[in-house]
Amino acid sequence: MRFNILENDTICALSSPPGMGAIAIVRLSGEKSHEIVAEIFEQKNKKFLLSKIETYKAYYGQIIDKEEFIDDVLVLFFKKPHSYTGENVVEINCHGSIYIQQRLLEIFIQHGARLAEPGEFSMRAFTNGKFDLAQAEAIADLIASQSKAAHNLAVNQMRGGFSKKISTLRNRLLEFASLIELELDFSEEDVEFVDRNKFFQLIDNLKDEIIKLIKSFTSGNVIKNGIPVAIIGKTNVGKSTLLNAILNEERALVSDIPGTTRDTIEDTIVIGGFTFRFIDTAGLRISDDTVENMGIERTYDKIKQASILLYVCDLTSIDDVSANEIIEELKQYTENQNKQVVLIGNKVDLLTKIPEYFKDLIPLETVFISAKRKENINLISESLQKKAQAIHHEQDTIVSNLRHYQALEAAHEAILAVENGFNNNIPTDLIAIDLRQAIYHLGTITGAISNDEVLGSIFEKFCIGK
Amino acid sequence: MRFNILENDTICALSSPPGMGAIAIVRLSGEKSHEIVAEIFEQKNKKFLLSKIETYKAYYGQIIDKEEFIDDVLVLFFKKPHSYTGENVVEINCHGSIYIQQRLLEIFIQHGARLAEPGEFSMRAFTNGKFDLAQAEAIADLIASQSKAAHNLAVNQMRGGFSKKISTLRNRLLEFASLIELELDFSEEDVEFVDRNKFFQLIDNLKDEIIKLIKSFTSGNVIKNGIPVAIIGKTNVGKSTLLNAILNEERALVSDIPGTTRDTIEDTIVIGGFTFRFIDTAGLRISDDTVENMGIERTYDKIKQASILLYVCDLTSIDDVSANEIIEELKQYTENQNKQVVLIGNKVDLLTKIPEYFKDLIPLETVFISAKRKENINLISESLQKKAQAIHHEQDTIVSNLRHYQALEAAHEAILAVENGFNNNIPTDLIAIDLRQAIYHLGTITGAISNDEVLGSIFEKFCIGK
Repeated sequence: MRFNILENDTICALSSPPGMGAIAIVRLSGEKSHEIVAEIFEQKNKKFLLSKIETYKAYYGQIIDKEEFIDDVLVLFFKKPHSYTGENVVEINCHGSIYIQQRLLEIFIQHGARLAEPGEFSMRAFTNGKFDLAQAEAIADLIASQSKAAHNLAVNQMRGGFSKKISTLRNRLLEFASLIELELDFSEEDVEFVDRNKFFQLIDNLKDEIIKLIKSFTSGNVIKNGIPVAIIGKTNVGKSTLLNAILNEERALVSDIPGTTRDTIEDTIVIGGFTFRFIDTAGLRISDDTVENMGIERTYDKIKQASILLYVCDLTSIDDVSANEIIEELKQYTENQNKQVVLIGNKVDLLTKIPEYFKDLIPLETVFISAKRKENINLISESLQKKAQAIHHEQDTIVSNLRHYQALEAAHEAILAVENGFNNNIPTDLIAIDLRQAIYHLGTITGAISNDEVLGSIFEKFCIGK
Repeated sequence: MRFNILENDTICALSSPPGMGAIAIVRLSGEKSHEIVAEIFEQKNKKFLLSKIETYKAYYGQIIDKEEFIDDVLVLFFKKPHSYTGENVVEINCHGSIYIQQRLLEIFIQHGARLAEPGEFSMRAFTNGKFDLAQAEAIADLIASQSKAAHNLAVNQMRGGFSKKISTLRNRLLEFASLIELELDFSEEDVEFVDRNKFFQLIDNLKDEIIKLIKSFTSGNVIKNGIPVAIIGKTNVGKSTLLNAILNEERALVSDIPGTTRDTIEDTIVIGGFTFRFIDTAGLRISDDTVENMGIERTYDKIKQASILLYVCDLTSIDDVSANEIIEELKQYTENQNKQVVLIGNKVDLLTKIPEYFKDLIPLETVFISAKRKENINLISESLQKKAQAIHHEQDTIVSNLRHYQALEAAHEAILAVENGFNNNIPTDLIAIDLRQAIYHLGTITGAISNDEVLGSIFEKFCIGK
């Protein structure tokens, strides 16, 4: 266990991103934080008086420790409970030098603070009831988000919509559970406090809502971590050139020799507010080269992981037969594997008109480009945006956290067991156990139920200083 | 020219270090900065009223642009002239996500601000008389400093001691110059307003003080950029092993084959508040290997650049003759090249006692170590600290800026020309030109005299957001 919830000692950490910059922020939280800063803070050569502190006011002055001038700073004091952590907090804006950042932390530690663990500020905020666990996790997601879609996902969760939905589901279960427990207490009198029909209806509702949430995880997860896009196609059709054109820089090795790209190369880019995680793949052909064949095997793996496939074909070498083969191959992806597919006819610059047989492919979304000349690359960007919106079908509440997903799965399983129990006339006391399980798992999401180990593993993923 | 001094348009930039962190700071400065933020800042679902602004107060609220929620933030408004730049300033503490940082800047630009050039905030502060040029440069040095010595150097310059000294020197020259100019106006009457003896005394004083400042640059420069330490000695005496032991990690390639280290490897470490820049060198021996000989030549170059030499010898292979050779070689460094030298007897772990003839070496500071076993490495650190303090002989004002050094050199030359002019009875009007030159060069240091090109080249070296 890293955290001791009962401790209210004073912690300190660098809260701005690590490294050198114009301004850095060092933050303290805990009972002694105001005193510690007041001891070394001066205004116009006079010690700062603790009694003078007004909350939400910025004080300009100097940090001077044992006559050693450290820096000109701006200091903000926050009085409990009106702070991020709910404790006394101080935020110091100093010059962003590595030396000053380190020296300030050293001085605070000498004066009785200790270095905060990652996420310890947020952990204290959670402990002090500033937000629930799902909201705390949303803050970490918010800080990590690099695209509008990921940002919005985190904001919605941070604002508490998801927590409220989970709490509502859990409260409805709790209500019925307490009636069931009552029945157990009076089991000898053989009364039924719980209307069985109403209960089945509730179970059905709950199952629906939980499954909706579980299903949303697929899109929530790809939006948060980037929508995986695999660029596939036969060898030498220009897949790497296309990836380069999209990324607008030379990341992949490009040559005229078929099979140049042997390993999968990943890169991310934000288009229209969505993060796309591009996967360039080795061409799909039979090869004698062992290394290349390993690459091809990996390509099939990557296709499985992808949400969107960009299937690239070389317009100059395509004919009726190969066009039909492509249709058959792509059908397999769209129909059997539920992939979003965009067909890309490359090397359009070498043709005077698009071949007739391409009309057969029209059921699929098709874009004609020249990867080499970077022509019509914007059409691919537009297609990707449309596909991303299709994945991100508007829904109020999207689950994007693996821990929540797993808790929902476990709650779902427990509810199925409850339903099954009633259907098979299993004794109420056994059913009550499954019911408690379902309530427990929903409770872990918002932290209504938690333990130190779970809390530790959640908060250790936070930034230092948050 | 990058800057337009006359512009007071509103600029914005990220002021915290680049990257992801718990908290980031975005800053605006300029006439419209308060209005721009007020337009998109809400408290409890109500637009923030500009008329409500109190300076040096932190407002908690939300940035919402066209109904798009961006972030929960803490906003600080500063009213001109009581701000860093002397203009209206806003500092926004937001969650440190890449997306939020970028989005806030985008929104400010949409509302009429523009992205600040590096150093543009400080440039405006300079223009508005918040500090002089030498102090502005000290702020950039302060932010870049990674050791206590460099930090103190920057702080002293920032606090204005150096600027005051330069201004005093310049004012004394100005006073005499105006009298000299007066003489020229009345030249036909053949009066002497300037007491020649007093003037020579002044010139002598000025020369002394300027030379003291010029000489301080050597130590100021090495303190700022790291004191160069060359580890030298014959091949295979354990130089790379020693460097590794000092750096406490395996940076250099280590092997038993003589000549493994062919190129010079540089690394810095802070010991006792000083930054040392270590230079591992190829061993000094005659070799048939062309590449290695190039390395040896480079070693001699590096020795010239170093302030401190750590001369390593292998105690197990040393005898009377080689000991005397070492003494002769080191004399050359200490006496002719003014280097600080520490003699290091390595492989002490392989001996039962220190060889007798080593007593001959006693005039030199000597440390016995085992680089391989990392024994007594702390003694080397202590020696280095002592040597650094010897370089950093206490002096109020140390010049650490190349631009100041060059201006002082130019001023010194002009003053010599003035002196020479008087001694050779050169007409006063010609002497006055050199006098003006001296005054000009001193003026460029504090920015009493400046031009856009100079300002541009100074401030472009600043951080973004400073």
